[in-house]
Amino acid sequence: MGRRTFLPLLLALLTPGAAIPVPPAVRALNNLHLSTSSTSHPAIVMEYSIHYIQQKVDHFGFNTDKTFNQRYLIADKHWKKDGGSILFYTGNEGDIIWFCNNTGFMWDVAEELKAMLVFAEHRYYGKSLPFGSSSFKDSRHLNFLTSEQALADFAELITHLRKTIPGAKNQPVIALGGSYGGMLAAWFRMKFPHMVAGALAASAPIWQFDNIVPCGVFMEIVTTDYRKSGPNCSECIRRSWDAINRIAENGTGLPWLSETLHLCTPLKHTQDIQNLKDWISETWINLAVVDYPYESNFLQPLPAWPVKVVCQYLKDPSVSDPQLLQNIFQALNIYYNYTGQARCLNMSETSTSSLGSLGWSYQACTEMVMPFCTNGIDDMFEPHSWDLEEFSDYCFRQWGVRPRPSWITTLYGGKNISSHTNIIFSNGDLDPWSGGGVTKDITDTLVAITIPEGAHHLDLRANNAFDPTTVVLARSMEVRYMKQWIKDFYANLRKKH
Amino acid sequence: MGRRTFLPLLLALLTPGAAIPVPPAVRALNNLHLSTSSTSHPAIVMEYSIHYIQQKVDHFGFNTDKTFNQRYLIADKHWKKDGGSILFYTGNEGDIIWFCNNTGFMWDVAEELKAMLVFAEHRYYGKSLPFGSSSFKDSRHLNFLTSEQALADFAELITHLRKTIPGAKNQPVIALGGSYGGMLAAWFRMKFPHMVAGALAASAPIWQFDNIVPCGVFMEIVTTDYRKSGPNCSECIRRSWDAINRIAENGTGLPWLSETLHLCTPLKHTQDIQNLKDWISETWINLAVVDYPYESNFLQPLPAWPVKVVCQYLKDPSVSDPQLLQNIFQALNIYYNYTGQARCLNMSETSTSSLGSLGWSYQACTEMVMPFCTNGIDDMFEPHSWDLEEFSDYCFRQWGVRPRPSWITTLYGGKNISSHTNIIFSNGDLDPWSGGGVTKDITDTLVAITIPEGAHHLDLRANNAFDPTTVVLARSMEVRYMKQWIKDFYANLRKKH
Repeated sequence: MGRRTFLPLLLALLTPGAAIPVPPAVRALNNLHLSTSSTSHPAIVMEYSIHYIQQKVDHFGFNTDKTFNQRYLIADKHWKKDGGSILFYTGNEGDIIWFCNNTGFMWDVAEELKAMLVFAEHRYYGKSLPFGSSSFKDSRHLNFLTSEQALADFAELITHLRKTIPGAKNQPVIALGGSYGGMLAAWFRMKFPHMVAGALAASAPIWQFDNIVPCGVFMEIVTTDYRKSGPNCSECIRRSWDAINRIAENGTGLPWLSETLHLCTPLKHTQDIQNLKDWISETWINLAVVDYPYESNFLQPLPAWPVKVVCQYLKDPSVSDPQLLQNIFQALNIYYNYTGQARCLNMSETSTSSLGSLGWSYQACTEMVMPFCTNGIDDMFEPHSWDLEEFSDYCFRQWGVRPRPSWITTLYGGKNISSHTNIIFSNGDLDPWSGGGVTKDITDTLVAITIPEGAHHLDLRANNAFDPTTVVLARSMEVRYMKQWIKDFYANLRKKH
Repeated sequence: MGRRTFLPLLLALLTPGAAIPVPPAVRALNNLHLSTSSTSHPAIVMEYSIHYIQQKVDHFGFNTDKTFNQRYLIADKHWKKDGGSILFYTGNEGDIIWFCNNTGFMWDVAEELKAMLVFAEHRYYGKSLPFGSSSFKDSRHLNFLTSEQALADFAELITHLRKTIPGAKNQPVIALGGSYGGMLAAWFRMKFPHMVAGALAASAPIWQFDNIVPCGVFMEIVTTDYRKSGPNCSECIRRSWDAINRIAENGTGLPWLSETLHLCTPLKHTQDIQNLKDWISETWINLAVVDYPYESNFLQPLPAWPVKVVCQYLKDPSVSDPQLLQNIFQALNIYYNYTGQARCLNMSETSTSSLGSLGWSYQACTEMVMPFCTNGIDDMFEPHSWDLEEFSDYCFRQWGVRPRPSWITTLYGGKNISSHTNIIFSNGDLDPWSGGGVTKDITDTLVAITIPEGAHHLDLRANNAFDPTTVVLARSMEVRYMKQWIKDFYANLRKKH
């Protein structure tokens, strides 16, 4: 079975950059940590302290009273006890320090909102491991890795902060997150509205479940990105799969492909061809996800508008198979070797760290069951249908668990969420994940913000001189909504007293 | 440690009548069951079918895929596919057939609301046992007995009904429940607003947790009931404790008390005296809870306004100790022997069945931690403070678990629930549980209905010729709100299409 319909899609995208280690700029200074956002304009100095809170391993059962330490970061430079607020990042599937460093938006608005910034690490990621190094050992140890447990951790943490930080008790908390973290932010407001006054859910594909959206929408958006980024670009990619298949059939095809694509590990068996195609597909997807308007280092160091750059090599679909593959290499080389340091391309690395990938692989096999498919017509990929049974068997072999594909809809409501309030769903039109996102207002207080020139949660990134007007506008709307929630919170507080 | 501050309070009241077996009037007719509400006026014929749904034992973890059969009842005589509704009883800590037979209100309004009635049994009660006869064996088997799992069962059941019953898909569901079931109805609307258009939470003490309300309020209301039901009534009871203590100190005190109170099992040890006083306290509490305006058989067969009847024997607090105790016996005899069939009074029976009591005892020791206390001044009981540590040790000895007294507040919001909508909280002023209930409107759509002459969820009982005007009015307001929710649901549905 191809890898494609499974984890890599999710991992590559929902775990953007989990592979990237903590930026070296982060340095310990007692419990004060500093780093600088390199893409920020002007550069922001990020200063935070690291903390741990003891959490129940199981919030929903009493048989075990075992606890673990959940990590969280606090930055309170701009926080005001009088009329301030708390911006709470609902950590997703990776190291919280990395998310902290890649969520410049929160740092940029802290002063205006007199906000304390809190970044909460998601259990089973980073340093927040319920069973230490045994956390991923088997399904018994992984049993407490669910979105519900994560939300309960957040609720307990906020309760703790309100109790222990003088001045925090009567302040509005706003949840923020991107990608899976954006889903958590939205779900947190839905399930714990007493904890947060509102939520900014950036690029949160809360509808990429069950059959709420067509399974093909994701890859169609990827394809559109390439089609619009250069003439014939998507067509070159569409043709490349058969070109690879034809070359592979040739006796010297595998070594030729290995050499042409500068692979670190040469292809040896026919089944390696599927891996090769999956790896290339993932690369195109990742590029679409991080198609940012300026040089960045999110999943990989990349030039501005990387899909456009890649498409400069993919202009002519009518060239010979070998020529097409040489062009494909040039394109891949942008993603894997923009800095020019790589001596070969490593197929086992796309953008995932082993830690994040383990955790997300389990989550995708249990609750986070996102059906994906391609048909090769509306998209530029080889056709691949969504096969739940096959997926379930894979999950059972891998983790000893079976997915419950309808559970997320039963739990969080699917499309029936109009009774909730104060959630901003932001999406970039370039982002393949926008296909499973909320891109139209549901009510006056469940609003959608779309960013035509935005890739994956561009709005959460730091201000940048090259930001398109549309993301600048989106951020200012987001700030306006947050200010309104803060104002309403204080008005209600005054009413009570 | 006295029993009083612990379980009996909850069991006796939150499990009203769980001790009472299925009324003999229920007779099987294939899968059609019939019974008649004896207190209804005119008598309602209750016709329902019994069903089972396969539920996951653990909705919140994937390590086990074990399932069990949850029982539910359906009555669809008055249901209309066109413009109808579904009234969903969120079962509490007892046999669902018993709740079905004691919730005449739903039967009375079915025709007007064109409603299908569904009664869902709570896991670990009645016939819905996750591990059959081993369900209460130890904390490992009891691990899945929580309100969250129960709500998830309800959500799965509604999803199943909507999928499998033609015509049910696009109909509004309204949650209804009383006592702990009322808490579940309210929490269900809060956590699963996509499942139910609204909730009627009758006599639901959602604030009887943590220190949201003073721990003494419950027993103060009990006391007020007695004070208002007869001159010197509460004073007689207040004096009785010392009278018992003085008599017990006497050499022949224990046999004398055993004989005077017609106890089935004579008192043997000095420590039996505490049990005696706890048992008597429970009796006074139970009488206050079911102080209904007409003859009824809820916890026990009782006359109309039983507290008034009891107070006829408790008029003179200045009599001798032996005379006071003889009067106390006459009063107890109303509760335990109204039918005149009992040959002695059984201290081990107040109103609980072994099944309900086991489950609720565990729930009270885990999530449902309700602090109670008395001071002997504002109430008619012996002083007893709330001691969490002592309680926790008791729970650990009993079940191997420790309570998490703040969890319910963290999870369901405590007093901060104003962002929710469409919940009616109804409470009777006579009901001690109203002290932990919502008795004032929170918003336009989170409304309180109080019934000055009402005991524990009187409004959920069938219409009766002796109903006070206030409960008739309460029920008509409840119907009006439900009709509005149904109307809004269909209006929204039309907007979507």
